[in-house]
Amino acid sequence: MSAPPDLLTKVLALAKRRGFLWPSYEIYGGVAGFYDYGPLGAQLKASLEALWRKYYVAGEGFAELSAPAVSPEAVFRASGHLDKFADVMVECTRCGEAFRADHLLRELYPGEEPPANLEDISKLFSDRNIRCPKDKSPLSEPFAFNLMFRTTVGPGTQRTGYLRPETAQAMFLDFGLLYRFFREKLPFGAVQIGRGYRNEIAPRQGIIRLREFNMAEAEVFFDPERKRTHPRFAQVADLRLHLVPNEGPETDLTLGEAVSRGVMAHESIAYFVGITANFLVEAGIDPERLRFRQHARDEMAHYAADCWDAETLLSFGWTECVGIADRTCFDLEAHMKHSGQDLRAFVRYEKPQTAERTTLAPNHAVLGPRFKKDAKAVAKALESVEACTADGRDFLELDIEGRKLKIDKDCFTEKKISETVSGKWFTPHVIEPSYGIDRILYSILEHAYFETQKEGEDYFVLRLKSELAPVQAAVFPLVNKEELVSVANDMNSRLRSRGIRTYTEAADSIGRRYARMDEIGTPFCITVDFDTLKDRTVTIRDRDSTKQTRVSREDLPAVLDELLDEIRRG
Amino acid sequence: MSAPPDLLTKVLALAKRRGFLWPSYEIYGGVAGFYDYGPLGAQLKASLEALWRKYYVAGEGFAELSAPAVSPEAVFRASGHLDKFADVMVECTRCGEAFRADHLLRELYPGEEPPANLEDISKLFSDRNIRCPKDKSPLSEPFAFNLMFRTTVGPGTQRTGYLRPETAQAMFLDFGLLYRFFREKLPFGAVQIGRGYRNEIAPRQGIIRLREFNMAEAEVFFDPERKRTHPRFAQVADLRLHLVPNEGPETDLTLGEAVSRGVMAHESIAYFVGITANFLVEAGIDPERLRFRQHARDEMAHYAADCWDAETLLSFGWTECVGIADRTCFDLEAHMKHSGQDLRAFVRYEKPQTAERTTLAPNHAVLGPRFKKDAKAVAKALESVEACTADGRDFLELDIEGRKLKIDKDCFTEKKISETVSGKWFTPHVIEPSYGIDRILYSILEHAYFETQKEGEDYFVLRLKSELAPVQAAVFPLVNKEELVSVANDMNSRLRSRGIRTYTEAADSIGRRYARMDEIGTPFCITVDFDTLKDRTVTIRDRDSTKQTRVSREDLPAVLDELLDEIRRG
Repeated sequence: MSAPPDLLTKVLALAKRRGFLWPSYEIYGGVAGFYDYGPLGAQLKASLEALWRKYYVAGEGFAELSAPAVSPEAVFRASGHLDKFADVMVECTRCGEAFRADHLLRELYPGEEPPANLEDISKLFSDRNIRCPKDKSPLSEPFAFNLMFRTTVGPGTQRTGYLRPETAQAMFLDFGLLYRFFREKLPFGAVQIGRGYRNEIAPRQGIIRLREFNMAEAEVFFDPERKRTHPRFAQVADLRLHLVPNEGPETDLTLGEAVSRGVMAHESIAYFVGITANFLVEAGIDPERLRFRQHARDEMAHYAADCWDAETLLSFGWTECVGIADRTCFDLEAHMKHSGQDLRAFVRYEKPQTAERTTLAPNHAVLGPRFKKDAKAVAKALESVEACTADGRDFLELDIEGRKLKIDKDCFTEKKISETVSGKWFTPHVIEPSYGIDRILYSILEHAYFETQKEGEDYFVLRLKSELAPVQAAVFPLVNKEELVSVANDMNSRLRSRGIRTYTEAADSIGRRYARMDEIGTPFCITVDFDTLKDRTVTIRDRDSTKQTRVSREDLPAVLDELLDEIRRG
Repeated sequence: MSAPPDLLTKVLALAKRRGFLWPSYEIYGGVAGFYDYGPLGAQLKASLEALWRKYYVAGEGFAELSAPAVSPEAVFRASGHLDKFADVMVECTRCGEAFRADHLLRELYPGEEPPANLEDISKLFSDRNIRCPKDKSPLSEPFAFNLMFRTTVGPGTQRTGYLRPETAQAMFLDFGLLYRFFREKLPFGAVQIGRGYRNEIAPRQGIIRLREFNMAEAEVFFDPERKRTHPRFAQVADLRLHLVPNEGPETDLTLGEAVSRGVMAHESIAYFVGITANFLVEAGIDPERLRFRQHARDEMAHYAADCWDAETLLSFGWTECVGIADRTCFDLEAHMKHSGQDLRAFVRYEKPQTAERTTLAPNHAVLGPRFKKDAKAVAKALESVEACTADGRDFLELDIEGRKLKIDKDCFTEKKISETVSGKWFTPHVIEPSYGIDRILYSILEHAYFETQKEGEDYFVLRLKSELAPVQAAVFPLVNKEELVSVANDMNSRLRSRGIRTYTEAADSIGRRYARMDEIGTPFCITVDFDTLKDRTVTIRDRDSTKQTRVSREDLPAVLDELLDEIRRG
């Protein structure tokens, strides 16, 4: 006897049967790590993204961008992904099967945490003489496999491109344009909703670990001296959450307590933890199955100084759905260094201050012969540049009378001066709330999934929030008779024109139609019966209580709005 | 003296300055064929896509999918893109510069139409001894360059993947699932809005020829015997359009006339031409600069039997924005052949008919030894299969007691039988309206762009439709005084909570703020002045007439709704 299917299998089966999630390329045998959103899944995803925009675009006032996924190599050389966005893998020298080294180690030595770096992993594989679990043949040396999909832009092979592993980079590359768009006032935020790519070695668990996934990211640019406090922190300060810090015990704290006790570094990161909790619960995540876990020091992405993950409890364990990272000035500094462009911001002091600063002194002996008639202009330009602009770079690129000139390091030396300053130039810090849309969507499905028995058969209900349900109200004629069908069709159109997502269908028994609606999470079914023709009343059936209430047709749109609103508020 | 900038340059300059369109990767020197949508561009694109959904999802009732862009090679082997989605190119043997052969020929021999196939192109290059226009060196042999971006899925090099050149394929691959989703009733449609990829040899003209572009496609599945008529054709039959058929003269006809005179093949294609015209004009395309051109026979994509393009007249000529193609059963047949899966539909006749059909007769002499104890079940299964299912295939795949068995051609022969049938199996035909979102968006910008002089300076206005304008109403305090600013902020929030996209700003003179709003196409500016504090009135300034009307604050939301509605209807 085979084991009963687990919850993941059952939820994915319902999702496939009802048009939420379809494994991609199935007629060709499928490709692991790719899923299609079917009609209901795409609608649920669109509603989830609309809710996200309500928080981040309408609520926070951030600007949405839409940038390409194909990116040139220079971007990821600067961002660090070319070097560091990799998993360690081993391949069987005989059958060719590829394994993630950490997965294989966890499988062979349960309870032992695999080492994090390539050298230690290699040593372990060699010390324990680990072989292919399939055919017991020797394995290759462990090696780092870069997880970016690689391609070539244009004809020839000279221009390597990669599919973005995150949408974030476009917001860093466009920082200067965004800064001007926001009229040079910090803080501001930019967001993107779109595809990210990760060429996983071993994708698994439905849509939890996809190779092409949907993400929603916000990059919030701050003056680092002002990130400890957040102007809207009071709105979330009393929110109590289950926290798992990287030091000390798990604990339930309000965000206000978390900041004042030093469990969270500052209000800016805590504010977005709060926003994230509100968003996830409004979207349908069970608050009892939600926690925020701080990354361990050696677990953090290469760009992050601190990171809190929103994790949902799923049938296979706690699962990261959102990461809220303090990326500091890592990315902007990296792109300044690699591009030679200035990606800093300026803030004006309330009153001028006297300050000492290190500036650049032109080396006239080098400038004269090298720049000839431009030497004077170059010298003048150098005098207005901060010394730290040149830190870690081999050259500066300066705008000299409309042309960009490359100024090598031997053209200047450092010089300390004291002066009255009206403000400061600085590299903004970035707080990044990064949401995995697919993982959130799957978590919503699992938390909404209820299974019962009805007349000896399995019966499934998805208790989706009304705001997100792909169909919000179904309008059914009790039986397939012309006089009832035409009334139902008319009501269906009228509700739809009021912006409610509706569905109508006359075939099959009313019980089977209710059952189909319960399976796709439709909160309300409205039934037109023979009494409707007499007294213009209809019944409204509530998905979760299965109770039916009779209301007059004229009251219906208002009643339905009220019900939808009530559930939205709840 | 240099020539004045052309309209393309001027529109792109405004689009960059105001945050509509930003060339991607600019801090690294840019990469041709990639653009970022800035905050206003992304909002305009979102509104354009929302309008498209109003036509195709809400209006037509089609189902929206969301599928990956990375696809395995098998998909494009079947679809024909692996063989046929290519441009002919030549490379300079010395400088390495790559040219599209047709572009180079057009440049060298203006007025001469370049040949379409590789052989004729090669002959022409060799006959005329064409050399590199840059350095006069010999060119390579002309060769076909496949325009799909290529990548590798997973570790190793064995699994080639491509970035989809169109979103359409997912709808064909999912046909079986869609057919069940629509409860096995034709016609139905599926749509996708998403990225498409085309590794152009020489991208150009801003966002007109991008390597990564945004498209919106509908695949409408029909019973081929029912495509001549369309149930909603009457809604567009009287629409008069400028048509350029591939035979005969250009002409202005209603769609009804176009079908009845045979200029358009059938109502189904004409219906979507009509829907497209309505959509484009509602989005802001000037109807005087819109035409529908039929593809010449040798211009059609490899999958199309007929195709009409919606073209907009831009400063650099007529430009394809939408293609409405009759793809017949090309794609479904191709995927059936390559995957061995059944992608047909069944339609029930109104009353049973007697029909002769060709079926498969099992070859028992082969089946016995090959399938042993399964031979009987295989024979039974073969008898229920249509003979044409095996057309053009090397094997059949049949479901025998839950297992898929491969049945080679020597296992059966054809046999004619006469019987009473209740319906027919057939491969649906597909009409595909395919929209290039970026091209439509650029056309809207160019058609909305007006340039005047004001106080001796260039003055720019974007006359965007109110429904699409990124900012629909600005609320300005006349001057930056606290008592006016707080009233403006309050009105701004109240309008925003009514779903109007608003903006407020107190800095700069009111004239400069109006000018900025004119440049981004904001239809209405509301100004709070000192009279507001006395009598609770504000002024509304109309972008196009620049006229100002004074209304009471209480009436404002209703007045604004009315104005927005009026322009939507107009």
